[in-house]
This record gives sequence, C-alpha cells and structure tokens, in this order.
Amino acid sequence: MGKGYHVAVVGATGAVGVELLRVMERREFPVAALRLLASSRSAGRKMTFRDKDVVVESLGEDSFEGVDFAFFSAGSEMARQFVPPARAAGAIVIDNSSAFRLDDDVPLVIPEINAADANSHRGLIANPNCTTAVALMALYPLHRAFGLRRVFAASYQAVSGSGARAINELEQQVKASVQGIEAKAEVYPHQIAFNVLPQVDSFLETGYTREEMKMQNEGRKIMHLREFSASVTCVRVPVFRAHSVAISAEFARPVSLDVACDALAKAPGLDLVDEPGAHRYPTPLEAAGKDRCQAGRLRVDCALENGLSLWVSGDQLLKGAALNAVQIAELL
Amino acid sequence: MGKGYHVAVVGATGAVGVELLRVMERREFPVAALRLLASSRSAGRKMTFRDKDVVVESLGEDSFEGVDFAFFSAGSEMARQFVPPARAAGAIVIDNSSAFRLDDDVPLVIPEINAADANSHRGLIANPNCTTAVALMALYPLHRAFGLRRVFAASYQAVSGSGARAINELEQQVKASVQGIEAKAEVYPHQIAFNVLPQVDSFLETGYTREEMKMQNEGRKIMHLREFSASVTCVRVPVFRAHSVAISAEFARPVSLDVACDALAKAPGLDLVDEPGAHRYPTPLEAAGKDRCQAGRLRVDCALENGLSLWVSGDQLLKGAALNAVQIAELL
Repeated sequence: MGKGYHVAVVGATGAVGVELLRVMERREFPVAALRLLASSRSAGRKMTFRDKDVVVESLGEDSFEGVDFAFFSAGSEMARQFVPPARAAGAIVIDNSSAFRLDDDVPLVIPEINAADANSHRGLIANPNCTTAVALMALYPLHRAFGLRRVFAASYQAVSGSGARAINELEQQVKASVQGIEAKAEVYPHQIAFNVLPQVDSFLETGYTREEMKMQNEGRKIMHLREFSASVTCVRVPVFRAHSVAISAEFARPVSLDVACDALAKAPGLDLVDEPGAHRYPTPLEAAGKDRCQAGRLRVDCALENGLSLWVSGDQLLKGAALNAVQIAELL
Repeated sequence: MGKGYHVAVVGATGAVGVELLRVMERREFPVAALRLLASSRSAGRKMTFRDKDVVVESLGEDSFEGVDFAFFSAGSEMARQFVPPARAAGAIVIDNSSAFRLDDDVPLVIPEINAADANSHRGLIANPNCTTAVALMALYPLHRAFGLRRVFAASYQAVSGSGARAINELEQQVKASVQGIEAKAEVYPHQIAFNVLPQVDSFLETGYTREEMKMQNEGRKIMHLREFSASVTCVRVPVFRAHSVAISAEFARPVSLDVACDALAKAPGLDLVDEPGAHRYPTPLEAAGKDRCQAGRLRVDCALENGLSLWVSGDQLLKGAALNAVQIAELL
C-alpha cells in the first residue's frame, strides 16, 4: 500500500466502521497497512478498501502491534477493554465512544472548533457525541459572534445512530406495515416505524438521558465554555440517516441576524441553507451522505432577550463520527 | 333521530370531519338531524352516522337554515366565506380553522382550561391549533401550580394534520421506497417518508412559521396570560397520527417535581405516562386514537432557574380538533 500509516479500525463491520473506510478512501488518508478488527462473530468477513479485499480479524489485546492510528467505533465497553492495550502498543487511539470523552487528560476534539486541543494528547483522543457535533458546528460560530450562554434543543435522530441492526429494524417494520402484518421491535423498546421515541440512551437519576446531557457536558469541554448549559430532549425518528436539531440559543451579547448569517455562511464544514420562502432549509434526507452540516431556519428568538432559533441537520455517521475521526488523525 | 340538535358538519369528508362523526357517536351527542357539507367535488358521497347513511351535500351560503350547531373543519378560507352566513342563519359555529381565533369577540376554548369563556360567545367559538391544544393540556396544570412564563418547544407533527391527502402521500412514498422506486412529493415540498421537515404552515417576516406562533398567541388567550411567550419550531414527521411536543418551560415560582407530577396526574383529559426506567413515556403511536393526551419525561430543567422539561403526545385529530369541538358544543 505504499508510504503512510499502519491503521487499525475497531468495530470495522459496524455502521460507523464502514463509513470510516469510505472516508479514508475519499480523503486519501495515507494508509500503508490496514487491520480491520471486530468481534469473533464478524471475523473472517471480507471488506473492501481501495479495491482490495481485507479480511476482518478477531479483536484481541495483542491486535495493535505496530499500529500507528487505531480508530475505535465499538461502544464504551469495548473501548474500556481494548483502548489501554492499544495505547500501550504505541498506537494513537481515536475513540468514538463516550467512555473517555470527559476525562481530563483526553482531548475531545471537533477540528473546526478546537483543533489545538488535539496536540496535548497522550495516545488517546475522543470523538464527540454525534448530535453534539452536528449542533456545535452551527453553535460555535454563533458563540464567537455573540457569546453563547445556554441552549434549549430537541433532536430528531436517525436510526443509523443505533447501528446496522436498527437500520434493518426500521426497514423490516416498514415492510411489515405495508403488508399489513405486525411489526416486531427488538433494537428499540417500541416500534420506530411511523412513530417517534423520546428516548436515546439510558436514563439518569435527574430524568434526563445520558445522550441529552452530552451537549452540555461535551459542549463545555469542546468550546472551553464552563458556564454553558443545555437542556435537550433527544428523540429517535424514523429517518435512516442524518440527525437534526431544533435549537433556541441564548447569548451574552445582543444578536444581529445579518451577523449571525454571515458567521454561519463562513463557518468551516457548514452550509447555510436558509431560503424558507423557496422551501429551502436543512432536512436529514438532504444532509445524508454529505460531509458538510447544514444550518437554516435562522431567526431572532421570540422568547429570549439575546436569542436565536435555528435548525441544523448533519450526517451523524460522517461529521458525527467517521469524518470527524479521520479529520482528527489528519491534524496529527 | 329523536330529540336533540340540528347539526351541520362543514368539511365532513376531511380527516377531522370523519373524526367529528365518530366523536359525536361515541359521546352520544344529541343529534336530531345531521347535515354533512363539503365542496361540490365531494357532494353525493355517502357517509355513515349511527349506522345510517347520510348523503354529503354541496356547501352553500343557504346551507344553514334551521341548524343549531355548525362544526367547521374546512380551513380558513372556507371559514371566512361561510361562517358569516351560518351565524346569520342562527347557528352556533364552532370553527376549527385559524381564521377567527384571535378576534376579540370570539372565544377560543379548551374546555379543560377556559370553559367559562365559551359563555360569552356571539354565535362563534374557535377551536385552538392542534399542537397548541396538546401542549396546553399539560402546560396549564403546571401553570396553575407554578405560574408559567415562557416555553421553548419543538414539535413532531403527524401527517394527518395536513389532511387525508397527506396521509395518502406518506403511504405512497413508503410503498415506492419499499419497491425501490422514486417517491413523489405533492402535498409537502419535500419527501416526508424517512425525512423530517422543519416547516408547518407558511413563513412570517420574522422567520417563524404561522404555526410556530400559535402556541404563544393562542396560549396567551386561552390561559389568560398576556405575558406568556413561546419560541417553537414546528416539524412534520413521518407519523400518521398524533402530535408530540418537547417542551422546556420556565415558571415564576420554584418548581417541585412531586407537585408537578401530582398536578399532571390530576389534570382532566391528561394521563401521566412517566416510568422511563420501564420505557414508559408518551409516544404518538400510543396516543393515536385516544381522547386523552399523555405527558411524561417530566424532569427539572437543567438550563432554567425555575424550569421543567417534559414531553407530550396527543391525537391532534381528537383533542386537537374533533373532540375539543364536540366538548365545546357540550358546554353550551
């Protein structure tokens, strides 16, 4: 494979793992050797990278010998078990799970926002939560313009955020419904087809879900904004791909719609799609498969002193996961 | 048909009109004579009421002779044209459109909240917006407990809110998708299957849609709360029936979760469905077809001084339209 890095992908067969391979191809990430790792269940499967077959290997503690970059997208439990041996073997780990995101010695990075934080890594950099990443792509430019204080947000999260089995579950439920037969729910606690579920992740004592607190907790760390608060309701919707978020944001300084538009239009990795009269605003179907997030429906908030309301859509498998991870590796 | 009122239903063949007939049957509304009115396109169609066929008549200015109650669910334009002749003929009109809702001399009524307002009618009472009605069913009991000041809300609105054609459009798009062919969009400006659209109703100069301002404008009038403000994002989702709303609400007085739970559990027309650990919370699929709205996901808001977050689902064809209209007639 020529000059470049020895790269391992943990959770290679999952929804994010598959995207990671495509993103590295598209961005011509310098891969000299590629090791695809997954549970023993998926071992032996062949995946394609740059037109060549690569056989998936069974993940073990000794899988990281000689690896330069290890992309983890295998959930928190696997990350807690296998990130330490990967670091010990000298790999730089970029982990997509929530396991280490809030640890003081682990940078949590969105390259368009806090690229410099990546430099202080000690062999591990965390990738942010997908909904948080999509929302911050629009909130951070507005923060720079007006000083962000707090947000009230509600999400519209695609099933691909729950992985390949959830995509299949929505497909099967829709087919069952068209055929007039009963739809089975296994991945989600209730039917997701033709329904919306106000639960993503598990519940905390406070009544918020873990997912709902990520925007505040991760947002504070990524934006270096200790006082930032975010009240979020995270909702799963029957969309295959791309998350959307409705946001009311309060700022320290008076807002101007022109300045806000300008800030969003110039923001890296973001497109301002905002011609409501022509029915042009972000939708998940439009954002799916695109590297760039989309912001629109920008308006002066009618219930806040210095506030803006907006709507953001972004492909959470890309900016919310695979793309952001590869961008982090590119920084280093 | 025995003793009772002479009732006219305008827009009888629409999604709400059909529900009106079912609600009057179920609640044994005293109908002595029934006149079903619709555009000439639907005239001649037969509909069933209490096991008898009723032929739909073409709506005209002379359709209201002898009518006691005229239920209008035919949109604002038809309401502006035909409500005046109906009132002139002596009928009491209960109008589901937004045409007269904010007029000073027209009561806007949710019987569980401001039943007494109905008494001052001059032949016309307005039925509130569906999303507003569903949200206020939970917000008003909380207002009584803590004094409501403002809300930040995002809606998840079912396609049946756009009428029978929109239900058909979602069905056709889903079928097309299962067959792998292209989905046509006619009712909505973009595909609604496997998508969400941050537009309900048309846009105002401010960037909000008309639908989004209804919660503030109608909420002030219904709750007698002039200072109430509401920043809302209204979103259409691929759900057939029942709207949901994610709400962060700020109050004048300190909140208590126990008092809030108690207020919601005792609220008329509302069920508290709130055992998140057991995956019990309102969903549109659960709320569909039910007279009672559902509230859940109640929690102390993490970004407000005196705030609560909650999630409400309700069948907008029932509480948001047909049921509320019949309840208003029952008051009189």
